[in-house]
Amino acid sequence: MNEELYKLPAAAAAEAIREGYITSEALVESCLERIDAREDEVRAWTYLDRDYALEQAREADRVRKSGQPIGPLQGVPVGVKDIFDTVDMPTEDGTVLHAGRRPIDDAFAVSQLRKAGAVILGKTVTTELAVFHPGKTRNPHDPAHTPGGSSSGSAAAVADSMVPLALGTQTNGSTIRPASFCGVVGYKPTFGLIPRAGVLEQSPPLDQVGVFARSVEDAALLAETLVGQHPDDPYTRFRATPPLLATARQDPPVEPKLAFVRSPVWDQAEAETQEAFAELVDFLGDAHVEEYNLGEGVDDVIEWHRCIMEADLAYSFARDYDRAADQLSDVLRGMIERGREVTAVDYNRAVRRIERINRRLHELFIEFDAVLTPATPGPAPAGLDTTGSPVFCTLWTYLGTPAISLPLLQGSNGLPLGVQLVGERHDDARLLRNARWLAGRIQQADAEAA
Amino acid sequence: MNEELYKLPAAAAAEAIREGYITSEALVESCLERIDAREDEVRAWTYLDRDYALEQAREADRVRKSGQPIGPLQGVPVGVKDIFDTVDMPTEDGTVLHAGRRPIDDAFAVSQLRKAGAVILGKTVTTELAVFHPGKTRNPHDPAHTPGGSSSGSAAAVADSMVPLALGTQTNGSTIRPASFCGVVGYKPTFGLIPRAGVLEQSPPLDQVGVFARSVEDAALLAETLVGQHPDDPYTRFRATPPLLATARQDPPVEPKLAFVRSPVWDQAEAETQEAFAELVDFLGDAHVEEYNLGEGVDDVIEWHRCIMEADLAYSFARDYDRAADQLSDVLRGMIERGREVTAVDYNRAVRRIERINRRLHELFIEFDAVLTPATPGPAPAGLDTTGSPVFCTLWTYLGTPAISLPLLQGSNGLPLGVQLVGERHDDARLLRNARWLAGRIQQADAEAA
Repeated sequence: MNEELYKLPAAAAAEAIREGYITSEALVESCLERIDAREDEVRAWTYLDRDYALEQAREADRVRKSGQPIGPLQGVPVGVKDIFDTVDMPTEDGTVLHAGRRPIDDAFAVSQLRKAGAVILGKTVTTELAVFHPGKTRNPHDPAHTPGGSSSGSAAAVADSMVPLALGTQTNGSTIRPASFCGVVGYKPTFGLIPRAGVLEQSPPLDQVGVFARSVEDAALLAETLVGQHPDDPYTRFRATPPLLATARQDPPVEPKLAFVRSPVWDQAEAETQEAFAELVDFLGDAHVEEYNLGEGVDDVIEWHRCIMEADLAYSFARDYDRAADQLSDVLRGMIERGREVTAVDYNRAVRRIERINRRLHELFIEFDAVLTPATPGPAPAGLDTTGSPVFCTLWTYLGTPAISLPLLQGSNGLPLGVQLVGERHDDARLLRNARWLAGRIQQADAEAA
Repeated sequence: MNEELYKLPAAAAAEAIREGYITSEALVESCLERIDAREDEVRAWTYLDRDYALEQAREADRVRKSGQPIGPLQGVPVGVKDIFDTVDMPTEDGTVLHAGRRPIDDAFAVSQLRKAGAVILGKTVTTELAVFHPGKTRNPHDPAHTPGGSSSGSAAAVADSMVPLALGTQTNGSTIRPASFCGVVGYKPTFGLIPRAGVLEQSPPLDQVGVFARSVEDAALLAETLVGQHPDDPYTRFRATPPLLATARQDPPVEPKLAFVRSPVWDQAEAETQEAFAELVDFLGDAHVEEYNLGEGVDDVIEWHRCIMEADLAYSFARDYDRAADQLSDVLRGMIERGREVTAVDYNRAVRRIERINRRLHELFIEFDAVLTPATPGPAPAGLDTTGSPVFCTLWTYLGTPAISLPLLQGSNGLPLGVQLVGERHDDARLLRNARWLAGRIQQADAEAA
């Protein structure tokens, strides 16, 4: 029976450890066995010290048995994208230029995990400097397909039940896209909710921490431990932690009404994605979903996002570029070189529009509980040369709104396809509650159909 | 006797009104008479409605007599630089392009003044869009000399006893410089302490609200009413208001030790300024002052500041430039045109260094209580074509440290010359206490010499 522990959802595992039904050591051992069996094919991990993982697990067990206070993730293993600094593991950022890098401190999010009692299982594969150039990871549903990126290893590891939870980030589509492609829940909280101190910096106005789990509840559990304020992240504030887990577990007091948003990039959705969403809208019915047109104000968001991101890549990676541009991928080098040409006026204009468009969107969120929109143009494309298109994530990353990808659809090739729900900024708890409602509704219908 | 009410310091006036010794109406009448007598020469005001000012004063008196709660500035008149939005007076920003502009809301600082019970006496002259091109104001000590800018009218009005208090701003030297030239106390609190909502935006990382008064105590009284948080100013935080006035009134528990900083622009100080500071340092003695070298890390601050400011002028005034570039001054047009060429990478690099240099300066503020440095290269230069050089203010504006100019010196031409004290960020109260200590020490010595 212990052999299947790796399949346990995080919340259930945490409870079983808390109640003494299982040990963290047994759970971590089971995850490590799963990894042993599958890693050759999936390649989700860039650093994994089995003995050290088990040592952390035994320490978590020891603390629990001693009667000392335990955390909400006591003994639960978590995978950490290799752009989060870890004081006890290398952090190499997916580039040979940072090979062997040993941070002198934990990222804020990692230190929150430790305070929550989690076991840092290991570091997961990221694309090069968390941008586009792929790492070694393959899609666990079909190794000939990309897992998406940039949080490739985190999404694949959770999807393949190697670990129940993992940390990612999103500057464009780096959480929602791999979640959609790998068939897991990917949740990117509101910009500013989780401090990015100790995370590889790409673009301060865009970088956001994300989480991966196999259920909405687990994603809420993980994200709630990460909320905070840090002086190194000026966008964070001291504020009460939103009750993400408790709210996600509630049923909505009234059934939600969703705004189906095709967004300005609808024509980039594959035909089967367009059909799948038409069916989904049809299935939910007029009572629960209504099409909503964002208007022309967001038509150029892809361009504004690019302007910010490329200019910031040029700033953030200037040292790497100056030292060894030839060791960067062509795609990243091109972005940096374009970024160097961006003027401060264009940059600031693009940054300032973030707030303005959010204010305009407030209307939408008065009328609707969440936006319903594709997470990706389609399921994971074949091949490992790219990580697929982030285009359905760009608008929401730019705006800093909370977004979640739910593994509710399937492409004709049998690969998963995510449904994205988006909420208003700082309304994360309600978004998670609505996401659990939607997932439940679809799963119930699937069960009835089966 | 009432004829001399205009000379009352703000704190004394507030107390006299509170205790019923004088009325706000009498005080405001006296200020208006002073203005009538002097405005032709000084030209400090761009908008002044005598009847409306008296109406506000009578209302302040009525509230006090009714026994309702009164504010710390109840009935005290304040001049407001004409780039702070006022809902009941035009706000024209010193440019014909904004002539007749009527804001629909008060700036945060103005609304704080109203809450404090102040009478908004009128709007004071600013340079063109609060940059370099002079307005009509003349130095009250000698009308052939500039009052400094950009808060020209506020500094001149307070210096000439037309009003005991006034609001200004500082993006480069716009509070400290005119305070030095006009011989008043100019105090620029820590960046982020006073929200800039409703103030003409030049440069978000640099714009700061400042205050003018004829004593340190009065400057503390005014500034303390302005502290706050506003969603439109992302650099502000909810935090306890520092006890500026109470601390400024205390004697330092130990006599302060000042760091005399020549700064990288020392060679731009006039010979008599250099001599005056040598004498000042000599007078204070080794026990109270020691020369401190900032090192090479700040040599290029003038350039970084220019990079940020010009790029932001190009952004902030794009609409004015596009509409009517020919109606902007040559100097502003040149800055905007240079600013359009600044790259985002250079801009962001310059912005990010602000934090880094502040962290390095922390060492200085462990060892010393405040920095002692010139406020301006010399007394107000002759002529009204420029507002003089802000070069001794640039570093501290860039860093966002609190700074105060004290009217303690005099040039050979008889015009005042400020001594600037600078503190660590968010250590405003201590800076004010040390400023009052220094002012007291010099005034005592002057009295003994006389």
